[in-house]
Amino acid sequence: MSTAVILIIGNEILSGRTQDVNLNWLARELAELGILLKEARVVRDEEAAIAEAVNSLRKQHTYVFTTGGIGPTHDDITTACVAKAFGRKVVRSKQAEARLLAHYEPSQVNPARMRMADVPEGAELIENPVSAAPGYCVENVYVLAGVPVIMQAMFAAIRPRLKGGAKLLSRTVSAFITEGMIATELSTIQDRHKEVEIGSYPFMRAGKLGVSIVLRGTDSAKLQATAKEVHALMAKFTPEVVEEDLATTA
Amino acid sequence: MSTAVILIIGNEILSGRTQDVNLNWLARELAELGILLKEARVVRDEEAAIAEAVNSLRKQHTYVFTTGGIGPTHDDITTACVAKAFGRKVVRSKQAEARLLAHYEPSQVNPARMRMADVPEGAELIENPVSAAPGYCVENVYVLAGVPVIMQAMFAAIRPRLKGGAKLLSRTVSAFITEGMIATELSTIQDRHKEVEIGSYPFMRAGKLGVSIVLRGTDSAKLQATAKEVHALMAKFTPEVVEEDLATTA
Repeated sequence: MSTAVILIIGNEILSGRTQDVNLNWLARELAELGILLKEARVVRDEEAAIAEAVNSLRKQHTYVFTTGGIGPTHDDITTACVAKAFGRKVVRSKQAEARLLAHYEPSQVNPARMRMADVPEGAELIENPVSAAPGYCVENVYVLAGVPVIMQAMFAAIRPRLKGGAKLLSRTVSAFITEGMIATELSTIQDRHKEVEIGSYPFMRAGKLGVSIVLRGTDSAKLQATAKEVHALMAKFTPEVVEEDLATTA
Repeated sequence: MSTAVILIIGNEILSGRTQDVNLNWLARELAELGILLKEARVVRDEEAAIAEAVNSLRKQHTYVFTTGGIGPTHDDITTACVAKAFGRKVVRSKQAEARLLAHYEPSQVNPARMRMADVPEGAELIENPVSAAPGYCVENVYVLAGVPVIMQAMFAAIRPRLKGGAKLLSRTVSAFITEGMIATELSTIQDRHKEVEIGSYPFMRAGKLGVSIVLRGTDSAKLQATAKEVHALMAKFTPEVVEEDLATTA
């Protein structure tokens, strides 16, 4: 099965200034593609931390997606770090340069902006329909923007070439009971249905505690059989059990 | 300086089902305490991944905070993993047991719920005023709940004992200009003020592109001097420059 890891680059996430939303968005896309997201990391704008993370992660996973740090300012160091991780030089891409020159008025062109045409040698560009400055990939590392709308546009451009497996299907069974009431029997259901991943997620809604049991797997029939057992288990405690088919959003 | 790392445990974050909000909340608290958050990781409910992450991170940082995986169901495996990472046995805490027995009606007590009184040998409990089942710490690893309201209550209980440094102060200068316009001169401002960390964050508001320059540091006077230069730089391009003092939220 294809696996992926997301590397979020930026002090603003770790200082609490910015609430990251890219992980959640990418996680849903990857689940839909049948690519298992194994891990996510958030690192600071520090060369050693980024280069080390890129190098250890790219060897362990089918895909590495990075977000952030490819703008024109001094704190945008992702390209230097990715180049370092691969032992490649940073070079000016003629193709990226042409796109930036087409995008900006001549009076807006300056050296800092043109730095956004610099990529690790041999990188393949990823189109940015929002603000021209491209992302790129080097082998299995996909370098995307941090601004969500731009990151999403870049991902849309590479999505068709990503190789996943069977879509991860999901079914959720929820009720206003607490997970401690069903934990023991739920565990035996999990033991009987090893090909279905069963997660238990407590929630509080309108001041009432409840639990959602989320079933994930690639086989729709097995998922439904397991959901039926979970449903029956919950129905012992309350008449109101809600079952949702979340289709492809895992 | 004290450093910290946050380890978020849970398939639901990596499947995209749940948008994590614990990282952002903890990041703000740590900034206020003057503890530098160096990294965050999100891992799946898999023993090897969790134990390995706990072990490598606890050696590199002053504090490790984990969230998630300490409930009563089969997918709550954090305690087993933390115990494994430290080479300790999992034992039933008499103190935690007493708290759970006081919290539940006798008819609600069952073996799965009582598992929430199991901790790595020698762990110190962290009070949970919301739902009784405690968190705990082992050396520098703080094991907290995943449900935000419970995690926050647990953090409030341990906050007074965490040792930080000077509060990280922050000042933001924003305008509806793009970062490429000021990137070169901003870099020279950063070179002149090395004790202030300057971050550049583009945004889009009401369809207009803008940029926030965020200055962080522990010295208020140096922060203000740097902000003045950034303000003057931006004022070359627009009369409307907004300066905010974000005090302690970095």
